[in-house]
Amino acid sequence: MTASSYILTFSCPNRPGIVAAVARTLFDVGGNIQEAHQYDDVETNLFFARIRFNFVANDNLTACRVALSELAEGLTMQWKLRATSDKARVLILVSRFDHCLADLLYRWRIGELAIDISGIVSNHPGETYVHHDLSGIAFDHLPVTPQTKEQQEARIWQIVEDRQIDLVVLARYMQILSDDLSTRLAGRCINIHHSFLPGFKGAKPYHQAHGRGVKLIGATAHYVTADLDEGPIIEQDVERISHQDRPDDLVRKGRDIERRVLSRAVFWHIDGRVLLNGRKTVVFRD
Amino acid sequence: MTASSYILTFSCPNRPGIVAAVARTLFDVGGNIQEAHQYDDVETNLFFARIRFNFVANDNLTACRVALSELAEGLTMQWKLRATSDKARVLILVSRFDHCLADLLYRWRIGELAIDISGIVSNHPGETYVHHDLSGIAFDHLPVTPQTKEQQEARIWQIVEDRQIDLVVLARYMQILSDDLSTRLAGRCINIHHSFLPGFKGAKPYHQAHGRGVKLIGATAHYVTADLDEGPIIEQDVERISHQDRPDDLVRKGRDIERRVLSRAVFWHIDGRVLLNGRKTVVFRD
Amino acid sequence: MTASSYILTFSCPNRPGIVAAVARTLFDVGGNIQEAHQYDDVETNLFFARIRFNFVANDNLTACRVALSELAEGLTMQWKLRATSDKARVLILVSRFDHCLADLLYRWRIGELAIDISGIVSNHPGETYVHHDLSGIAFDHLPVTPQTKEQQEARIWQIVEDRQIDLVVLARYMQILSDDLSTRLAGRCINIHHSFLPGFKGAKPYHQAHGRGVKLIGATAHYVTADLDEGPIIEQDVERISHQDRPDDLVRKGRDIERRVLSRAVFWHIDGRVLLNGRKTVVFRD
Amino acid sequence: MTASSYILTFSCPNRPGIVAAVARTLFDVGGNIQEAHQYDDVETNLFFARIRFNFVANDNLTACRVALSELAEGLTMQWKLRATSDKARVLILVSRFDHCLADLLYRWRIGELAIDISGIVSNHPGETYVHHDLSGIAFDHLPVTPQTKEQQEARIWQIVEDRQIDLVVLARYMQILSDDLSTRLAGRCINIHHSFLPGFKGAKPYHQAHGRGVKLIGATAHYVTADLDEGPIIEQDVERISHQDRPDDLVRKGRDIERRVLSRAVFWHIDGRVLLNGRKTVVFRD
Repeated sequence: MTASSYILTFSCPNRPGIVAAVARTLFDVGGNIQEAHQYDDVETNLFFARIRFNFVANDNLTACRVALSELAEGLTMQWKLRATSDKARVLILVSRFDHCLADLLYRWRIGELAIDISGIVSNHPGETYVHHDLSGIAFDHLPVTPQTKEQQEARIWQIVEDRQIDLVVLARYMQILSDDLSTRLAGRCINIHHSFLPGFKGAKPYHQAHGRGVKLIGATAHYVTADLDEGPIIEQDVERISHQDRPDDLVRKGRDIERRVLSRAVFWHIDGRVLLNGRKTVVFRD
Repeated sequence: MTASSYILTFSCPNRPGIVAAVARTLFDVGGNIQEAHQYDDVETNLFFARIRFNFVANDNLTACRVALSELAEGLTMQWKLRATSDKARVLILVSRFDHCLADLLYRWRIGELAIDISGIVSNHPGETYVHHDLSGIAFDHLPVTPQTKEQQEARIWQIVEDRQIDLVVLARYMQILSDDLSTRLAGRCINIHHSFLPGFKGAKPYHQAHGRGVKLIGATAHYVTADLDEGPIIEQDVERISHQDRPDDLVRKGRDIERRVLSRAVFWHIDGRVLLNGRKTVVFRD
Repeated sequence: MTASSYILTFSCPNRPGIVAAVARTLFDVGGNIQEAHQYDDVETNLFFARIRFNFVANDNLTACRVALSELAEGLTMQWKLRATSDKARVLILVSRFDHCLADLLYRWRIGELAIDISGIVSNHPGETYVHHDLSGIAFDHLPVTPQTKEQQEARIWQIVEDRQIDLVVLARYMQILSDDLSTRLAGRCINIHHSFLPGFKGAKPYHQAHGRGVKLIGATAHYVTADLDEGPIIEQDVERISHQDRPDDLVRKGRDIERRVLSRAVFWHIDGRVLLNGRKTVVFRD
Repeated sequence: MTASSYILTFSCPNRPGIVAAVARTLFDVGGNIQEAHQYDDVETNLFFARIRFNFVANDNLTACRVALSELAEGLTMQWKLRATSDKARVLILVSRFDHCLADLLYRWRIGELAIDISGIVSNHPGETYVHHDLSGIAFDHLPVTPQTKEQQEARIWQIVEDRQIDLVVLARYMQILSDDLSTRLAGRCINIHHSFLPGFKGAKPYHQAHGRGVKLIGATAHYVTADLDEGPIIEQDVERISHQDRPDDLVRKGRDIERRVLSRAVFWHIDGRVLLNGRKTVVFRD
């Protein structure tokens, strides 16, 4: 068998025989299924799957794509196929708080996140990140004011297009994307919301949580949509707090939750484990 | 030393010397501090403490109460003193779903919850609970309709008074207490809210959570106040769910969270570990 | 479509085309795959799967079994097929501590565990369980001494055979099964070990944990094998403890972990989610 | 009141009146208790406390130390007093895996860990850490062979003495300290053990865990003692794994557990929250 693996993800209206048809199609072009996850949503009657396969003998990718295309047409299937060796091109947007950035950079450096970091955009100047090793990474300082917002978003979009960005990560980027940009980036822009949604939406959620006296705080990674704080949730996690914790302690504890929730979401997204299902997600966790 | 232990809980405006004064007072009447927790809320400038102590020689309770009274007056202190051997009298209110009731009964039977169950009130008939051993426990069937609600609440209050109830537990009691009764039971009525507040308030929170596609569900135990779902939170916990979980699965998984959150809240309350701090709580966890 | 669902579980040496072949086989007899999990163990080169399906039109079970038999022969496949409406017959063995028993009984009563409780065997007399409603459940008091152990195990085995028991649950049964009985019950006898294995094997693990000063305690559900405390692990969970916890507190907190770990293991086992893989398990969690 | 806070930690044989005496002593020198934790170990009959206080008017530290000295003598008390503004001097020992180092450096840079990093010692050359910003931090490359071990440990000890190191952190330092050095660093050297002790001691614990098929993996931060892997445990945590995880996945998931467990242990140690109690610890968690 060859070394390369491929990830096929797809969704389509459910009907009998989908698995058989896809499995047969892959088998016929010499594919060997290594891992498979599927989910049948009885509410929407949609079927979702992620299949990792390789080729028994020679890579037969062209024939495979042709066969899948034909099948997809018949099944009204939306599908993606990519080699695990193809690294996703990721653009990171960040503001002053850099804990998520630091975490992503570290995981990328040691090879845990198999991505290309194709750029970092910040509304703060490069000096903010002087302790990070950004050598070899394009950095754009795009300060945002109400007056410049439209223009700066245009530049972000230009970067996305020019560098063929696969995924935009809002790593505590404290600017709200316009409806227009959100829509253009639908399904390929992940935000970390520093709260356990839908608990405390909006600004300063840790202060809100403190005021309410909750006993757990959390964070939420979600796809960005025009409807702020309402995008499809990918991952959430929490940590226990107590009456002793002041807002600053919540912010400190929150940093740990945020970075691990965001990095999981990015990891799963690039590994083809997250599929959109309307305003929800299907996540085949690792 | 004698076998009995006493729990002193108090709160007062913070000022230097409180601990020294209380410790000295207890020492002077022959008390030996076995365990102490304290918390100084810098926002409200209130001081909270829980002290477990026994007497080195003979129990000197009368002198102890007199001394504490004097001290309390000087410090504008609210305080409670009880022997750990005095079991709290608990009234459980329940509706059709009996998982929290079953859990409390079991913990009580094996001596884990050192309480007296002074009665069970349900808006469902006794047959609902035929699989539980309620022998020796007063059971009142008080069905509630809009017309009878006031009258039935009067009977509940009568029970609370007649039996000198220390704590009312709403163990998935699906009736909303009136503002009046909530107010009378302030600080001694614990509800289990089948949601991670303030995520999904109101009815059918697991269905709401399912609709929103969250990745964690939770439950919240809180003191009942007139402001529904807004009472001081005592304890919360969560469990991970996935896209595979249907509303019924959430309800099933929720039962486990609800019963452990409620039993912890009750356990801590009767052990003097929960102190009210405005609309929040101070919880000295075990 | 018909209402009944079927669970097919199987394992076999891995080779290309297994999924395609099984999916095709089911499709050909009118089956519709509703849910599928699979796992390819690259170390042992074994393939594991669980497939839930129903029939599009009429239930075609006989043809389905015939087709699967043929396929299984070709693939050297071990397989099981059962209707979700067929309840597993479960025998519970218990000793003095009844918290796991109480938990299983409750989940069974409310329909959460879709099993038939075909009997309870205890080395303690029936009076021990007077607070439980055991009406309609066969109860056998089989006290064990070194002298009677062989004979009592023979009676247990007789019960297993006579009542066609599918699963034996050791719900804190404080007798060690003989190698012989363990072997006969291989893969259908689940034990709850009151420790996070392999941390503290053997007797009084909570006391061992206390002595060592660990900060988390746990419990382990595993299949029983002749090699005590070494059987394939199905599920584990932990809870945080502190220096304040005495051995009794660990035992108390341990009860909660034990019952939830055991009930999950039983739930997953009867739902066909646990497959044996040598001395390990494959668990397709719900 | 003045801005500075002080942390007093002490332990002594338990007897009535300790809290009263200490509280009185602090009060008499103008101290105001802001936070207090205490623990009475009934097994060893030792009493442990941590008290944070400030001075109502002027800092009266000399008088305070004199008064505490006298008291300590009478109570056979071991005690430490330090200003929260005095930063602990920390030496980090590291080998090739730098995830714990990266984490500690980040927390230090943003002020979360209020320490001075007084040096980094590695048995690997400085180039290993080229992506970290080590500017301003002394770095010593001390490669260890069986022949040079004694000599290199002497140099480490020299560094500890010269720089008045308060705490040595073994941040995945893959060399076993000699009994002699372990003993000299007793109570001020924290190791992260990449396993949930006492589950899998020794080398390659994640591979051991994989082989055993456990469902949770963990990490343990403990004080270093001559008895390898047996030092007093400060903190532990776990993460859920599944049959899908290969040893490499366990190593990856383990990194996250290790860094958060180690950073918590260091945070609590420097904040005076960890007290030694024989081969166990008392941890007043934040």
